[in-house]
Amino acid sequence: MNVVVQNIERVDPAIVEGLGKCGVSTVHEAQGRKGLLASYMRPIYPGARLAASAVTILAPPCDNWMVHVAIEQVRAGDILVLATTSPSDAGYFGDLLATSMQARGGVGLIIDAGVRDVSDLTQTRFPVWSKAVCAQGTVKETLGSVNIPVVCAGALVHPGDVIVADDDGVCVVRRAEAADVLAKAQTREANEEAKRARLAAGELGLDIYGMRPRLEDKGLKYV
Amino acid sequence: MNVVVQNIERVDPAIVEGLGKCGVSTVHEAQGRKGLLASYMRPIYPGARLAASAVTILAPPCDNWMVHVAIEQVRAGDILVLATTSPSDAGYFGDLLATSMQARGGVGLIIDAGVRDVSDLTQTRFPVWSKAVCAQGTVKETLGSVNIPVVCAGALVHPGDVIVADDDGVCVVRRAEAADVLAKAQTREANEEAKRARLAAGELGLDIYGMRPRLEDKGLKYV
Amino acid sequence: MNVVVQNIERVDPAIVEGLGKCGVSTVHEAQGRKGLLASYMRPIYPGARLAASAVTILAPPCDNWMVHVAIEQVRAGDILVLATTSPSDAGYFGDLLATSMQARGGVGLIIDAGVRDVSDLTQTRFPVWSKAVCAQGTVKETLGSVNIPVVCAGALVHPGDVIVADDDGVCVVRRAEAADVLAKAQTREANEEAKRARLAAGELGLDIYGMRPRLEDKGLKYV
Amino acid sequence: MNVVVQNIERVDPAIVEGLGKCGVSTVHEAQGRKGLLASYMRPIYPGARLAASAVTILAPPCDNWMVHVAIEQVRAGDILVLATTSPSDAGYFGDLLATSMQARGGVGLIIDAGVRDVSDLTQTRFPVWSKAVCAQGTVKETLGSVNIPVVCAGALVHPGDVIVADDDGVCVVRRAEAADVLAKAQTREANEEAKRARLAAGELGLDIYGMRPRLEDKGLKYV
Amino acid sequence: MNVVVQNIERVDPAIVEGLGKCGVSTVHEAQGRKGLLASYMRPIYPGARLAASAVTILAPPCDNWMVHVAIEQVRAGDILVLATTSPSDAGYFGDLLATSMQARGGVGLIIDAGVRDVSDLTQTRFPVWSKAVCAQGTVKETLGSVNIPVVCAGALVHPGDVIVADDDGVCVVRRAEAADVLAKAQTREANEEAKRARLAAGELGLDIYGMRPRLEDKGLKYV
Amino acid sequence: MNVVVQNIERVDPAIVEGLGKCGVSTVHEAQGRKGLLASYMRPIYPGARLAASAVTILAPPCDNWMVHVAIEQVRAGDILVLATTSPSDAGYFGDLLATSMQARGGVGLIIDAGVRDVSDLTQTRFPVWSKAVCAQGTVKETLGSVNIPVVCAGALVHPGDVIVADDDGVCVVRRAEAADVLAKAQTREANEEAKRARLAAGELGLDIYGMRPRLEDKGLKYV
Repeated sequence: MNVVVQNIERVDPAIVEGLGKCGVSTVHEAQGRKGLLASYMRPIYPGARLAASAVTILAPPCDNWMVHVAIEQVRAGDILVLATTSPSDAGYFGDLLATSMQARGGVGLIIDAGVRDVSDLTQTRFPVWSKAVCAQGTVKETLGSVNIPVVCAGALVHPGDVIVADDDGVCVVRRAEAADVLAKAQTREANEEAKRARLAAGELGLDIYGMRPRLEDKGLKYV
Repeated sequence: MNVVVQNIERVDPAIVEGLGKCGVSTVHEAQGRKGLLASYMRPIYPGARLAASAVTILAPPCDNWMVHVAIEQVRAGDILVLATTSPSDAGYFGDLLATSMQARGGVGLIIDAGVRDVSDLTQTRFPVWSKAVCAQGTVKETLGSVNIPVVCAGALVHPGDVIVADDDGVCVVRRAEAADVLAKAQTREANEEAKRARLAAGELGLDIYGMRPRLEDKGLKYV
Repeated sequence: MNVVVQNIERVDPAIVEGLGKCGVSTVHEAQGRKGLLASYMRPIYPGARLAASAVTILAPPCDNWMVHVAIEQVRAGDILVLATTSPSDAGYFGDLLATSMQARGGVGLIIDAGVRDVSDLTQTRFPVWSKAVCAQGTVKETLGSVNIPVVCAGALVHPGDVIVADDDGVCVVRRAEAADVLAKAQTREANEEAKRARLAAGELGLDIYGMRPRLEDKGLKYV
Repeated sequence: MNVVVQNIERVDPAIVEGLGKCGVSTVHEAQGRKGLLASYMRPIYPGARLAASAVTILAPPCDNWMVHVAIEQVRAGDILVLATTSPSDAGYFGDLLATSMQARGGVGLIIDAGVRDVSDLTQTRFPVWSKAVCAQGTVKETLGSVNIPVVCAGALVHPGDVIVADDDGVCVVRRAEAADVLAKAQTREANEEAKRARLAAGELGLDIYGMRPRLEDKGLKYV
Repeated sequence: MNVVVQNIERVDPAIVEGLGKCGVSTVHEAQGRKGLLASYMRPIYPGARLAASAVTILAPPCDNWMVHVAIEQVRAGDILVLATTSPSDAGYFGDLLATSMQARGGVGLIIDAGVRDVSDLTQTRFPVWSKAVCAQGTVKETLGSVNIPVVCAGALVHPGDVIVADDDGVCVVRRAEAADVLAKAQTREANEEAKRARLAAGELGLDIYGMRPRLEDKGLKYV
Repeated sequence: MNVVVQNIERVDPAIVEGLGKCGVSTVHEAQGRKGLLASYMRPIYPGARLAASAVTILAPPCDNWMVHVAIEQVRAGDILVLATTSPSDAGYFGDLLATSMQARGGVGLIIDAGVRDVSDLTQTRFPVWSKAVCAQGTVKETLGSVNIPVVCAGALVHPGDVIVADDDGVCVVRRAEAADVLAKAQTREANEEAKRARLAAGELGLDIYGMRPRLEDKGLKYV
């Protein structure tokens, strides 16, 4: 059955914003190394960085009808997360849909398929992380669903989960865990700052992390 | 038999130029969604955009002899389109050949193989869409052909066909259809402009395109 | 047995620097078209170009312990070259390790696996050529080795070999052959300069290289 | 946190057996075309066909410790379903583990990674669907989890879900939906039998399915 | 525009049969090494070998409606050749369609997409060469065309061309060239028989083909 | 410089035979998990299993001239190991070359490229492990080398090294280490036999290997 779930819970915007500042690698570590989308998901231009609430789409291959349906569900600060029922590289999304998204406060797209008009999207700074760039258009013939749990690029995403994305890729944070993950990520960042200073001064990780005895125990030989 | 076809028909430069302004995604739609090369064909730098007349090359794997032969056939506004008889990532083309192309008015390269010297090509703004970037050189031992129909990255290209290429990929337009496709592409662009304004004002595609009744007929449930 | 080889021979810095100026494609040609790493090794940002002495790492999949061990062996002008014992896309290296490398004079990383924090690495201009960009972290559980010969992206690299890397990819030059390869590469560059001028003036490669008789002998037909 | 869930619910064996007789393609259709694992999951020998209850494993890359832990949880009629936290082709499973599985009534393995000893597994008819065949061994250093929901080859699998696998690939059926899906699959099979007879007699699908008017409406031209 | 071309010319069945006996590698050589489909096209079971007249299909992604249309055009000795307008791994074809094909004398399928029910197809010896095996079903929503020229797995196929397929892959022979190619292929086979006898007796190719002087000229050193 | 090294050292045939009996997975473990070729190297038919002395070939892309040169260097019990200077899927080797190999006592081929006539090779039981099956022929224009160290599918192979290959893939054993590796492999096999019996009797690996305390130490929770 094909459904559109209209009321979804979202995370407090301050928490979302905080996660975006931490970035993908830090957030992924902070939540125990889970939730990372496959590394083939790449940004269409370098330097984009965001966190946002997921509005999910399960779409048929080469059919973008549900994108139109989903945009009606978008609120300010949301990002579309599109998974397909069968693999496709087609270009589901381009500058007209980006215009519509921006008019409604939508901030980006995560798509396990293709995107087009990337030159326009780059100029208007509408960030997209995708599997492919492809001019191939889509049809509007077959239903899908909006705001159901989807598996996108190997990761399970529920509507309202927080998506963190930057040049390192894309990570999903469960809605109920977002506040806790943010706290851990910020602690991690603070710790890293101190280590960065020591490393910049020429200290070795071998010494900072006290690795030498365990290396010797495991049998590493210096020759 | 290996041949070089010396006289090929080209499309009126004004039509070629017009297609270039429309871009790949619009042209591909306008001609009924045919002629797109595979999405693995990517530009060596972002922002390049052109349309040009194809001078085609069928080359053996890792052998760029026919590129030299083809350049003699290039006129101002032409682009080389190279297909191979067996898959290869080797670097068939670099800055010396680009210098030669530019001296003859050639404007770019589409190659279902590798290219090298991409730093130089980027600085001199010689655009290339390729399957790979690869420093591996080629030999000059085996003949191929110039200006015969070739299948390049999954698309059939005849000499004199119009190549449209930008950040979205590469599309080929049949020579005899170019004027008609341009007219359709320009109409399409005009229509899109009106839609863009409505979408930017916050209207939904669901309403602009009148999609709601058909979604209901198909059985989409809002919950 | 897992070892760290502490004393390796390096090439005269002036030779290394000279190879870097020539670039990958020229050096690869000059040494007889050997030593090229697979074309899937791509820079994390465009425009990086260097030559450096290899400090090699053989690491288990998803385990970056040996990177910490290797950094202690790094001297000014060195580059890390990491191969894995089983394929992995994980992010072995990020901004903290880059800070440590830079503190010791290390100039870059070649990794047949993943890298993360690429936005930071781009800002601080720490160049990396990798198979993947991936936020996935690694563990520190299993030993590997440092400064043994490794096969990285299909090429054999010995510690102290010269790595040349730029937008065209990555090439390795044997330590004992570096001076000879530099001489050949510089000769090649000089020759290319003369050819470039003739090609820019509109002469054809067919004539400059005297290809016409051999093409005719092989049976190429002009029609 | 790493956990082993010891008590999982399983589907009535008669239902599981019924699903196995229907096969992957029929079951996938019957449940509305969901639950299919990626098509890169291939059997190690042709002709295997089964349905079984999933015991799930989330394992680190190149680390098969959790397989040993999971086998203790296996009951007669169970199949292991292994997903990894980072992509790996390593051989997590071979003939010793298959011997252990068979001793406990386990009937197969679905693994989004590699398998080895495939010659032995073929001879003893222990079926495996995998991403790769690879002799590379694994370590036992890092924890994972057993019987938690996992994403395996793009599909979400809960412990106790029914896995259906044959030469067409692998499909997962939710535990709560298994009885209903079986009924639909059996109905589908009955319908297909009637159609098969008519098609074998030379009737056309165009007529059996009444497609001609709709093709004409859409504008298909016979020339 | 979507069309079904109803009257196509076919090659004399005796010629088709002769090409099938020669096999893909011999035919490909005999016609000057052209017409080979990409090497990812693999048979669903080993040992199949045939030649047949092509009935071509250009189909939308994940939509097999045109297969039903095409089967009406099939005559005894024909093979379907399906290309898609956008890449797809979906299973366009299964045992019901194979039953229908066999009822009309169709002998196989070449498909640059997926196939399913491969266990049934293997048992009934209906050979298929495909890009993927995949249980994913397709829809019947969008038109395509039948018996127009298509690019299938990188090769141009016209309706009525001869398809030769075996364990080595798939090759297409132009209809007008089939008789000539058969003659050349048979000559080639006769020549190979003589060479095979000499090689089996222990003579070296170096001597049979007189390669030694040319190797010496090129500079090969024996050490 | 292109060379043919005529005198290479080989391992005692009894040791080679012993390694073949142990198989790839056991040998790979026994020598410390090194020497495995990439997992894309697959046998052309199931069930082949051998060990043999390597005669190595470094060949240009799509050029099999050096195969003819190498066969003269083959003695009874040798296997050809072919690496290319640039990636290629072309079919370097077919039934005529296999006939020649068999006449000289050669027992197989490892090729990081394509092979053809696989139906004939299967019937005459000439085993090949390759990256691709492809009918595309090759030329004889460019020199390579025979019996120099090569990197084949990511592994370094010296002439005279022992190649072990079976359904699990391909592994190389250094000549000087072969006797030692055989001893370790045989010990390993003996140990496995005892474990297999205990596992077949229903004992768990968790108990046989004493894993429970370490799992508890690491923090695994049973719920």
